[in-house]
Amino acid sequence: MDEIITLSYGSGGKKTSQLIEEIILPPLANKELNLLSDGAILEIQSNKLAFSTDSFVVSPYFFPGGDIGKLAVCGTVNDLSVCGATPMYLSLSFIIEEGFKIDDLKKIVSSIAETAQKCNVKVVTGDTKVVEKGKGDGIFINTSGIGVIKYDFLGKDKIAEGDTVIVTGTVGDHGAAIMASRNKLVDEFTVKSDCAPLNELAELILLYGNKVKILRDPTRGGIATTLNEFVEGGHLSIELYEESIPINDETNSLCEILGIDPLYSANEGKILAIVDSSIADNLINDLHNSDYGKNAKIIGKVTKNYPAKVVLHTLLGGKRILSKLTGAQLPRIC
Amino acid sequence: MDEIITLSYGSGGKKTSQLIEEIILPPLANKELNLLSDGAILEIQSNKLAFSTDSFVVSPYFFPGGDIGKLAVCGTVNDLSVCGATPMYLSLSFIIEEGFKIDDLKKIVSSIAETAQKCNVKVVTGDTKVVEKGKGDGIFINTSGIGVIKYDFLGKDKIAEGDTVIVTGTVGDHGAAIMASRNKLVDEFTVKSDCAPLNELAELILLYGNKVKILRDPTRGGIATTLNEFVEGGHLSIELYEESIPINDETNSLCEILGIDPLYSANEGKILAIVDSSIADNLINDLHNSDYGKNAKIIGKVTKNYPAKVVLHTLLGGKRILSKLTGAQLPRIC
Repeated sequence: MDEIITLSYGSGGKKTSQLIEEIILPPLANKELNLLSDGAILEIQSNKLAFSTDSFVVSPYFFPGGDIGKLAVCGTVNDLSVCGATPMYLSLSFIIEEGFKIDDLKKIVSSIAETAQKCNVKVVTGDTKVVEKGKGDGIFINTSGIGVIKYDFLGKDKIAEGDTVIVTGTVGDHGAAIMASRNKLVDEFTVKSDCAPLNELAELILLYGNKVKILRDPTRGGIATTLNEFVEGGHLSIELYEESIPINDETNSLCEILGIDPLYSANEGKILAIVDSSIADNLINDLHNSDYGKNAKIIGKVTKNYPAKVVLHTLLGGKRILSKLTGAQLPRIC
Repeated sequence: MDEIITLSYGSGGKKTSQLIEEIILPPLANKELNLLSDGAILEIQSNKLAFSTDSFVVSPYFFPGGDIGKLAVCGTVNDLSVCGATPMYLSLSFIIEEGFKIDDLKKIVSSIAETAQKCNVKVVTGDTKVVEKGKGDGIFINTSGIGVIKYDFLGKDKIAEGDTVIVTGTVGDHGAAIMASRNKLVDEFTVKSDCAPLNELAELILLYGNKVKILRDPTRGGIATTLNEFVEGGHLSIELYEESIPINDETNSLCEILGIDPLYSANEGKILAIVDSSIADNLINDLHNSDYGKNAKIIGKVTKNYPAKVVLHTLLGGKRILSKLTGAQLPRIC
């Protein structure tokens, strides 16, 4: 095997086979993937499925708290989980730049395998393309996923006045970690990406049944952008209380230095949940006893005071409208 | 709307929403996609599915006979079709380079919509990322697809001595068209990519039931590479007859000029089928009456003479072993 990826590895011929059989397949092996057919044949005992896709272009592809492989699995697993589905199968497609180190690819594939195992999903089909040096940026990964719908009561239309807004932990950590890493601030700051699989956390919340109105993982654009998606075009508003929003001190300092607002900074291991207020306290208790929900907080409520808007009650007693992210605050964050 | 894609369009905020709602969604609209949720919820009345993925990095992204959008739909539809599945749903994920013309994106999305309609598949979920200028190459597209398995008797293990090898038309046209386009030979040559959806053609063949042993669309690496995949690791061989292999004259001349072997040049609208010899003539007749099979030919047979090898009986009466493609004959062909 060579030390770097050359164009031959994308030709579809001998080198492509070698790459797949020696590097990609072994850590991921399962009966569907092993067939290396044009498509995987899946037996699924359900007629209601969730289907999701995401391409990952994060830069750098190794970052504090994870790498593009872990992110690619978590990203799609999380999208399926917040739809009320049990994630089952992933596809995995690489676009690799000529000159990429095969050792780095091995690390990324191993991270994909480890994360997939943790989430109990199988990578069953894949693809690898190689582009010339200067026509890509190391590695881009697409994962698409199929899940079985287990909870089918979620929807924007279920959100009602009086509902409670919960976030399952500190906000903005992924965006801050990537920016720290990109700006070589990693020695001074210890912020890590929160990149994590949320399938179990989503299930813990969904056990409360239709008192849960909607779940979303607030990635690009942060919690401010996701909350806007909940209320846009409608007559409800979301009011947040700045003092309640959990933010890691390091993330806060870093965001100040970089001029980033943590409410707009990406998360990769958090769920935003809108729930009936009657279950909020019990749910928070449950979350505090879970692996990824220890810093869960009630951060706001659904009202009719500011139709279609998200309003932040600031620490200083003022009000600030949080609109959707404008501009490119953080390019290539995921 | 701006004239070009800027990094803001990949931020996940307002510009991303605008891009999706004004450019991407309208031509593709359907009830699942319109929800713009993290994943699409699908009702599928079958428990046996095919799942496939492909990333497309073809350069140039507009080429004679098609574009990257048409290719991205056909590629995944064809992979599902040769698995014996009826293609149903696609995901669609863009990685766009900063500076890409929005007009070009519109053309590509419109081509995706038109091709999807032709194949009777729906794009139900998607993603858009933007990378900085110089970190991509215009546009890369991933499609993943779900199909319902209708014919479940196909497999490499079904291939037997005496079987017939059929190709549904002239070989190597896609690779030749891309290379002509890349080398600015398009004025002298009129070779077009054969890029086409093969769902109906696959179905026409599969109606012959388990007399059909295996189907594959010979893309990267051409028919020589795909035929090798059929016999590698086994005890059977495939013998081809050069005089029977249909090759477009223009493709042939172009391949000679460019030093490409048409047997290794990619196809994007052809099926290689291995079938029981008892149905071969009837099947060829049927193919000749179909839209995409007019030049179908019997090109060889399955024997035991050269275990695990593909052997070409040449026009000059010699024999040539066709091994899998080595090196990168044609980078970024799909």
